[in-house]
Amino acid sequence: MIKKLFSVLAGLLFISVNAAAQKIMGFSDMSAAKQIEWEKKYDALLNAKNQDAWMNFLTSHPHHVGSPQDKANAEYMAGLFRSWGYQTELATYDVLFPTPKIRVLELLGAKPYKAKLEESTLKEDKTSGQKTEQLPSYNAYSADGDVTAELVFVNRGIPADYEELERMGISVKGKIVIAKYGGSWRGIKPKVAAEHGAIGCIIYSDPEDDGYTRGDVYPEGAFKPKDGVQRGSVMDMPVYPGDPLTPGIAATKDAKRLNRNDAITIMKIPVLPISYEDALPLLQSLKGPVVPMSWNGSLPITYHTGPSKEKVHLKLQFNWDIKTIYNVIAKLAGSELPDEWIIRGNHHDGWVNGASDPISGMVAELDEAKAIGELVKKGFKLKRTVVYCAWDGEEQGLLGSTEWAEDHQEELRKKAVAYINTDGNSRGFLGAAGSHTLEPFFNEIASEVIDPQTGVSIKERRYASDFVNADKSARLKLAGNKNIKLGALGAGSDWSGFLQFLGITSLNLGFGGEGQGGEYHSIYDSYDHFTKFKDPGFQYGVTLSKTAGRITMRLANAEILPFDVNSFYKTVTEYVDELKTLLTTTRTETEQENKMIQDKLYVLAADPTKGFQTPKAKETVPFLNFSNLENAMIDLKTSTEEFQKMYKDAAQLTPEKQNALNEILFKVERSLINEAGLPKRSWYKHQVYAPGYYTGYGVKTLPGIREAIEQRNWKEAQENIEIVSKTMDAYSSEVKKAKSIIEKKAF
Amino acid sequence: MIKKLFSVLAGLLFISVNAAAQKIMGFSDMSAAKQIEWEKKYDALLNAKNQDAWMNFLTSHPHHVGSPQDKANAEYMAGLFRSWGYQTELATYDVLFPTPKIRVLELLGAKPYKAKLEESTLKEDKTSGQKTEQLPSYNAYSADGDVTAELVFVNRGIPADYEELERMGISVKGKIVIAKYGGSWRGIKPKVAAEHGAIGCIIYSDPEDDGYTRGDVYPEGAFKPKDGVQRGSVMDMPVYPGDPLTPGIAATKDAKRLNRNDAITIMKIPVLPISYEDALPLLQSLKGPVVPMSWNGSLPITYHTGPSKEKVHLKLQFNWDIKTIYNVIAKLAGSELPDEWIIRGNHHDGWVNGASDPISGMVAELDEAKAIGELVKKGFKLKRTVVYCAWDGEEQGLLGSTEWAEDHQEELRKKAVAYINTDGNSRGFLGAAGSHTLEPFFNEIASEVIDPQTGVSIKERRYASDFVNADKSARLKLAGNKNIKLGALGAGSDWSGFLQFLGITSLNLGFGGEGQGGEYHSIYDSYDHFTKFKDPGFQYGVTLSKTAGRITMRLANAEILPFDVNSFYKTVTEYVDELKTLLTTTRTETEQENKMIQDKLYVLAADPTKGFQTPKAKETVPFLNFSNLENAMIDLKTSTEEFQKMYKDAAQLTPEKQNALNEILFKVERSLINEAGLPKRSWYKHQVYAPGYYTGYGVKTLPGIREAIEQRNWKEAQENIEIVSKTMDAYSSEVKKAKSIIEKKAF
Repeated sequence: MIKKLFSVLAGLLFISVNAAAQKIMGFSDMSAAKQIEWEKKYDALLNAKNQDAWMNFLTSHPHHVGSPQDKANAEYMAGLFRSWGYQTELATYDVLFPTPKIRVLELLGAKPYKAKLEESTLKEDKTSGQKTEQLPSYNAYSADGDVTAELVFVNRGIPADYEELERMGISVKGKIVIAKYGGSWRGIKPKVAAEHGAIGCIIYSDPEDDGYTRGDVYPEGAFKPKDGVQRGSVMDMPVYPGDPLTPGIAATKDAKRLNRNDAITIMKIPVLPISYEDALPLLQSLKGPVVPMSWNGSLPITYHTGPSKEKVHLKLQFNWDIKTIYNVIAKLAGSELPDEWIIRGNHHDGWVNGASDPISGMVAELDEAKAIGELVKKGFKLKRTVVYCAWDGEEQGLLGSTEWAEDHQEELRKKAVAYINTDGNSRGFLGAAGSHTLEPFFNEIASEVIDPQTGVSIKERRYASDFVNADKSARLKLAGNKNIKLGALGAGSDWSGFLQFLGITSLNLGFGGEGQGGEYHSIYDSYDHFTKFKDPGFQYGVTLSKTAGRITMRLANAEILPFDVNSFYKTVTEYVDELKTLLTTTRTETEQENKMIQDKLYVLAADPTKGFQTPKAKETVPFLNFSNLENAMIDLKTSTEEFQKMYKDAAQLTPEKQNALNEILFKVERSLINEAGLPKRSWYKHQVYAPGYYTGYGVKTLPGIREAIEQRNWKEAQENIEIVSKTMDAYSSEVKKAKSIIEKKAF
Repeated sequence: MIKKLFSVLAGLLFISVNAAAQKIMGFSDMSAAKQIEWEKKYDALLNAKNQDAWMNFLTSHPHHVGSPQDKANAEYMAGLFRSWGYQTELATYDVLFPTPKIRVLELLGAKPYKAKLEESTLKEDKTSGQKTEQLPSYNAYSADGDVTAELVFVNRGIPADYEELERMGISVKGKIVIAKYGGSWRGIKPKVAAEHGAIGCIIYSDPEDDGYTRGDVYPEGAFKPKDGVQRGSVMDMPVYPGDPLTPGIAATKDAKRLNRNDAITIMKIPVLPISYEDALPLLQSLKGPVVPMSWNGSLPITYHTGPSKEKVHLKLQFNWDIKTIYNVIAKLAGSELPDEWIIRGNHHDGWVNGASDPISGMVAELDEAKAIGELVKKGFKLKRTVVYCAWDGEEQGLLGSTEWAEDHQEELRKKAVAYINTDGNSRGFLGAAGSHTLEPFFNEIASEVIDPQTGVSIKERRYASDFVNADKSARLKLAGNKNIKLGALGAGSDWSGFLQFLGITSLNLGFGGEGQGGEYHSIYDSYDHFTKFKDPGFQYGVTLSKTAGRITMRLANAEILPFDVNSFYKTVTEYVDELKTLLTTTRTETEQENKMIQDKLYVLAADPTKGFQTPKAKETVPFLNFSNLENAMIDLKTSTEEFQKMYKDAAQLTPEKQNALNEILFKVERSLINEAGLPKRSWYKHQVYAPGYYTGYGVKTLPGIREAIEQRNWKEAQENIEIVSKTMDAYSSEVKKAKSIIEKKAF
C-alpha cells in the first residue's frame, strides 16, 4: 500500500555513526565481533531463488481477503515458519469486508457511454486471465448508492481544489465528482467531495501519473494500459484504521460490533475507480471553464471543470459480508529476555495477484526468517524474542495488523521493543521512515549493507541519488552529509497499530525508484510484471533481507538498545520551529490576502468575461503562547544530550541494571501517547506522528498543533501546544530516569 | 511576430511620476494643460468601428510578401495616410524571399505515413478556404535538401536539450531531428541541430503548448486544431536580421548582393514545420529511452528520444526569388523641429491572413495616425516630425524595417528621437519593453490611460495582475510598488534596426493575456478568429491607440524630452550585479559539478540498466577584473543622479539651449553603440540590449559580457567588460555635457 516512501528526503542532521568494523551501537566490542560473524553467515544463507519461488507460489492466484489463496498462503507460510523452528499460529479475526454486487457507470444523453469496468487478459501475463477469481475493480467501503447527476471534475479532489473551484464559481452540490488518483490517500477524495455536498465520486488513473506519459504501457512496458484500474480502500483511515465495526478492540468472533450505519470510517457516498479509457468519454462530456493549467492530465482533450450537460448514472451495491482474515504470527523465543519482543511484519494479502504489493516485501521477510532460524539451529543466540508477522487485510485498511495490535494491546505495551515494517520492494534506493530514536542505528546499518548494482553501501548510493536530484540550494545543505534523515510515518502500511495507537518505536523500510510500473492494485501486479520490471533476479529482495535482518538481529541482541533519544529531540525541535514558522507565515499571508481582497486586486487581475469569484477575507491570525512547549524543549534538549553522552558508559552496568535501562529506553516512545487521542480521532494517540486528516498517506508531525493551525482553529491549537508540552515533559522524565541508572554507577 | 511580450515582469524600481492632472514630464505647466486638452480631443476621435473595418479589409486575403493583397494593403494604407494629411511614400526594397516548390515528409518502413502538410478549410472561418492564395506551411530560409535518416526527438532543440541527450548516450549526427515549438526563437532549433551534426529538422506544435491542452480547439475554441501549422522564418536572425543578401546595407534594386551560399543567416539544413496530427506517427516511430518527464508533451503516447527504427524522408525545394517589399512611410512635419523624428511603426505583412499578427496592431496605429491628422487640421501643433510606418516583410526577418533603417542610417542617426513599435494586440494587460530612459515617462502615461474592462488605469490593472500571479517572495518585493519595470528588448519585431543597429531609443508595447489562441502563423489567424477570441469590439485596439498616441504626441511636443538617464543607470547597475553573480554562481556550480563527477555521484545515482553517460568535468572558472566597469558605473551613477536633479530646471532654459540639451538627450542612446558590434555578429552594435545568440527572442542584456560568460569564453568576457566600461564612460560623458548646459544657467 505504500506510495510515498521514496519521496522522503535526506535531511539536516549529521550524527557520526560510522562504526569501525568492530564497533556497533549497543554492543560491547566482544559481543559486536560475534554478532558481525553471525551476520556474515546470515548473508550467505539468503537466497534469491527462494524468494523467486515463493513469489511464484504466493501470487499464483488472486489472494485477497476471503479468497481460497489468501487462506492457503497463510497456511503455507505458517508451515514454512514452523519448519524453520518458529512457534507459529494463525491469528484470525472477523472483519467487515464489502465486495461488489452491482457496478454500473454510464453517461446518459445523446452520446451515451457505458463504462467497461474490466481489465483485459494479456497473453504475456500468465495470471491476468484468472477472471473468476479476481476481485472486480472497486473501492472498498464505498457506500451503496444509485445516483444520477451532472459531473464535475475536481482535479485531485483535495480541499485546495475546492477552493479553486469556488473562485471559478463552480459548485459540486448535488453533483457527481470525478477526481484524478494521486495527491492524497484515495479515501480523502470522496470524504472531501461529500463534505462539499457531492452525491457520488469517480476516481480515475490519468495517464500522466502512471500511464503512457511515464513510459510504455504493459505488457510492452511497465505502465498502466488503457483499461487498467487501481482498486483500493476508501475507508476514512485517518480517523481510525482496522475493522470499521470494532474501533479500538479486536474483531473477534464475539466482539461487540457497531451497527454499520454508525461506522464513521465507511464513506457516505458511492465511489468507483475507473480506467482512463472509461474516464475519457466522461471527461469529454464536461462543459464549463477550462481547468487551471496545473490540473491538466495527458489525455488528448481539453479538460473542463464541468458541470456536464448530460447526466452520469452511478449505481453501486455491495455484499457487506463479515470475512475471516488470517495473520501468521511466528515467534522465536529470546534466550535471555523472552518478554522483550522485536516485531517484524509485512502483509501478505493482495488486491488481486499482488506480486509487488505486497509479496516482494513478504518474500524478503521469509528469506530473513528462514536464515535466522537456520542460524539459531547452528548456535546463534537471540537474547530477545523475535516475532515474525504476515498480516492479512492490509489493503482494505490495515485490518490484520490493527486487529492484532488491538487484541494484544496490553501485552504489547509491556513487551514490544520495536516494530519493523516492510511492504512492496523494488530495484533502486533505500528509503526509510520511522521513530527518530532509531536514526543513528539505522544509518549504521545502512553504511554496512552493500548495494548490489554499484558495490558501494546502500547509504552511499542513497546519498548520491539525493544529491544529484537535489536543487542547488538543497545541495548546499546536503554537501558531505551522508546521514539518511528518517522520514516521519503517516499512513500507508501496517505500522499504525504499533506506532500511533500503542506508542511502539517503529521503522518502515524498502528499496525503490528504479523499478517501474503502473500496475499498482490492478490485475497486472503479477509475477510476470514484477520479475520483468521491478526487481529481476530479486537482487533488492536479498538486499532488503540483509538490511531488515540486521536491524532485527541487532535489536534482539544489543546489550544496550541502540536508541538515541537526542536524535529524537533534534528532529522534534525542527518540527516545533516549523510550527512557529507556519503560524507566522499563515499570519503574514492572511494579512496580505485580506489586503489584496480589500484593494480589489483579484477583481482587477481577473478576466471579467469569466465567472471569477473573489475569495472571502479571513479572520486575523492571533499570536499563540509557545512558552511551555519551548521550556519543555529546553529540558528535553538538556536531558537527552546528557543521556547520550553517558550512553557508552552503560556498557559497564550490571546485566540487571542494563535490563532496567533497556526497559525505560524501549518504553520511552510510550510517553508520546496521549490516551485521549488527537482531536476528532481518539484512536490516534501519538503526539508526534499521525497521518494527515486531509492527506491520509502524508504525515502531519505534531499533528494536534499543526492541523489546528492549518484549519485555523486557534483555541484547539493552543490546547494542543499544552498537551504536547506535557508530552515532552513526560518524555524528558523517562530520559532522566534512564540517566539516573547510569549515574548511580552501580556497575 | 512578438511572443514574449507579456512575460515581462514588473520590477524593482520605484520612481514617483504620478503627475497631478496638470503636470506632465517634459512640459511646462502651461503647455502641459494644452497638451492634455488635445489628448482629450484625441481620445474622442478614436473609433473601434474603423479599426474593425480596416481589419476586415486588410485581412480579406492572404497578404504575405509577394502577394497581390500585400501590395494592395500598402497602397490602401498609403491612401489613408495621404487623406489624413500625411506626406506619404512607398519605400520598396528587393529581398530574397523563398517559397516552397516541393515539400515531402514521410515515414518509411512497415507502417509508412505521408505527412498531410495541409490545414483544413472551416466553414466557420470565411477566409480559411482561400487555398490558392495561401502560402503553404513552411519555414522561410530553410535549406533545400533531400535527406533520409533515422529520427531523434530533441525536446525544444536548445543547447541544454543536447546536453541531456548526451548524458543519455543519444547522438543526432547524421539524423533528422524533431523538435517542439517553443522555448526559443524557432531559428535556433535547426541552427543548434546542424551544429550537432543533424541533417534535417522538423518542428511541430505540441498540443500542450497551443492546442487542446490549453483550451478547446478552433473553431469551437481559440486553440490550434490537429492540422494547424505554425509557419515562420528560421533565418539566423541573432546574427543579423533583414535581407540575407545585403547585411548592413539597403536591398535596393542595384545593391551589391552576397552570393546566396555566402549568406550565413540562411539555414544549413532543411527545416519543415508540421501539425501535431502529422507529428504523431513520427513520434510513435521513435525507439530508445523514454524522455525526461519535463520533455513530455500532451499527445497520447510515450515520448521516446529515438532514434527511430524506420527512416524518415524529408525533401524540400524552394523558389529562391527576389521579391519587392512595400513599406509605407507617412510623415507629418514638425512645426518647430522638423529634423527631430518620432518614428512609430507596426508591420502590415502576415504569414497568411494575419489578423492578430500584425493587423490588430496596425489598425490601432492607423486609428492613431488618423486622429492626430485630424487634430492637426483642427490646429494642434506638432513641434517635432512624426513618422508613421507600416512595415512589410517583418515575418521573414524584419525585412522592411531593417532595410529602411539601413537605407536611411545616416539620416536616422541625426534625426531619430525615438522609435515606438507595436505588433499583435489583444484583450488583457499592458506589456512593454524598451530603453530604460523611457521608463518613468512610460509609467506616467500608463497611469493616465483607463482600462476598458475595469475602469482603473492600465498601470493599476497590470500591477494587480503582476501581484496576484507573483509567488510569495515576489509579492514582498512588489508590494505597493506599482511602477511598471520595462522589459529589455531582444528580438521579435521591428525595433532591431533602430535600437540594436543604430542606437535609437526604442519602446515596444501592446496588450495581451486575455486574448486566447493557437492561431499564430496559421491560416486561422483570421478576422473571424480575432473578433471572436482576441479583442471583440476592438476595445483594446482603441486602448492601444490611446497609449501609443499619447507617447507619440508627448515625445513630439515635449519642451525637454522626457528621458530619464538615471533610470537607465539603475537598470544597468542591476545587470552588472547579475553578471557578477552569474560568474560567481558559474564558478561555484562548476566546482560542485566537478566534485560530483570526481566523487562518482552521477554514476552511483544512475540506473545502471540505462545508458547513462557521466558529464565531462569543466574548466575552472577564473576571477575576472570588473574594476573598470565598477568605476564607470560609479561615474554613471553620479552624473545621472545629478542630471536628473537638475532636469526640471531645464524648463527655464532658452529654446536654443533646450534644443541643444534635447539633442544630447535623444542621442545619448547612440553612445551605447560600438561600431565593431558584438562578438560573432557585428551587425548588433548595442552594448546593453541584444537578442541571445542561442535564444533568439530572449534578450541578453550586456550581451558581450553575458554570453561570453555563458559560453565560458573568459578572454572574450574580460575584453567585453572593458568595452562596456568604455561605453558607460561615453554615456556618462554625454550626460555631463547635458548637465553643463543646465549648469551654465543661461536661462
